Amino acid sequence: MVKYPSGSLATFRKSTEEPKIRTNFQHRKNVSFSGRGMTLEQMINESNKYYRLKEMAVVHKKPTPVQIVKVDYPKRSRAVIREAYFRQESTTDYNGVYKGYYLDFEAKETKNKTNFPLKNFHEHQIVHLEECLKQQGICFTIIGFTSLKRYFVTPASFIIKAWWTKDKSSVTLSEVEKWSVEIKSGFQPTLPYLIAVDHFITDRNMNNGKQ
Amino acid sequence: MVKYPSGSLATFRKSTEEPKIRTNFQHRKNVSFSGRGMTLEQMINESNKYYRLKEMAVVHKKPTPVQIVKVDYPKRSRAVIREAYFRQESTTDYNGVYKGYYLDFEAKETKNKTNFPLKNFHEHQIVHLEECLKQQGICFTIIGFTSLKRYFVTPASFIIKAWWTKDKSSVTLSEVEKWSVEIKSGFQPTLPYLIAVDHFITDRNMNNGKQ
Repeated sequence: MVKYPSGSLATFRKSTEEPKIRTNFQHRKNVSFSGRGMTLEQMINESNKYYRLKEMAVVHKKPTPVQIVKVDYPKRSRAVIREAYFRQESTTDYNGVYKGYYLDFEAKETKNKTNFPLKNFHEHQIVHLEECLKQQGICFTIIGFTSLKRYFVTPASFIIKAWWTKDKSSVTLSEVEKWSVEIKSGFQPTLPYLIAVDHFITDRNMNNGKQ
Repeated sequence: MVKYPSGSLATFRKSTEEPKIRTNFQHRKNVSFSGRGMTLEQMINESNKYYRLKEMAVVHKKPTPVQIVKVDYPKRSRAVIREAYFRQESTTDYNGVYKGYYLDFEAKETKNKTNFPLKNFHEHQIVHLEECLKQQGICFTIIGFTSLKRYFVTPASFIIKAWWTKDKSSVTLSEVEKWSVEIKSGFQPTLPYLIAVDHFITDRNMNNGKQ
């Protein structure tokens, strides 16, 4: 199994075994190798930056919510937070706007090869996705099977339904394959997830505003 | 001049001088008096909560971005952040979804009575609003003239134009009146800003997708 998360050369050396991954290989410095060695979050952040620079979409990751209790203001230096606590999030990690559509999504990864455990999602994320769907947002999850280097953009409706299903603790890879748009990690952007969003928008428009 | 921000009884005692404010007076505990004594941020947060519970819109304030450097994990107690720094924000404070529309806004208040200083907005907020406008988001600012207890929902396009105008350091109250939808603070929600958003949506649809 490939080590994960990994930025080590070990991953790179293995590339002869997986020739198709090398299609985006670049010899310049500081260039990512099709997202290799990056976490899913890094891949999405890079893609969001690309989309923003190209004026294709404006999507940001939300900061981690923190309850600040004590702040020091040292002379000739910037403020230092000396006591703070993590707060419960009430939303998903990402939202933004694309061609007038509201996008909202959560990204999760697993090392598993055959299924994705639903406990990766928290109830507040599921509830938030439900709320946004009711407001006609384009809501989805990006699921990374990191050992397989496969990435899926899955409509929130599928994950919500699975999450609330009694005694269902995971979704299988084949279920994810059936309900998602698979995205190949590339060079620019690292994870071109708007391709999947375009599919969802087309589907919605065909279904008369229903997703 | 009314003290601000104020939750003190002094404000309340003055209410006989301003009888129209009392229309929403309630004798129950923990009930806000039409937003009196609340900051603009508190009013918006309360309104967002109301809109969410009523399934009218899903809008959240983004957490303050913090760079976390050191975290302690005490036994039998939750994690404590012991060193962290404020990071530069890259967006506005609020975004969300309403009837399929992407909403993005910043809220600012002034104690001034005749003008609103543009230095209240930071460049990154102006740039972010521009980016979201290009993606057809509904972008605006909520400006509170707290001494006057007047609240305006102002299209981002007006503020952006004023902000980039050389030698223009503020917008006058009459300019704000001309370009905005004024919102009366009420009981539920405290600041019914979606009324203004409906105006913007109607205007946009009349103008064929242009705002």
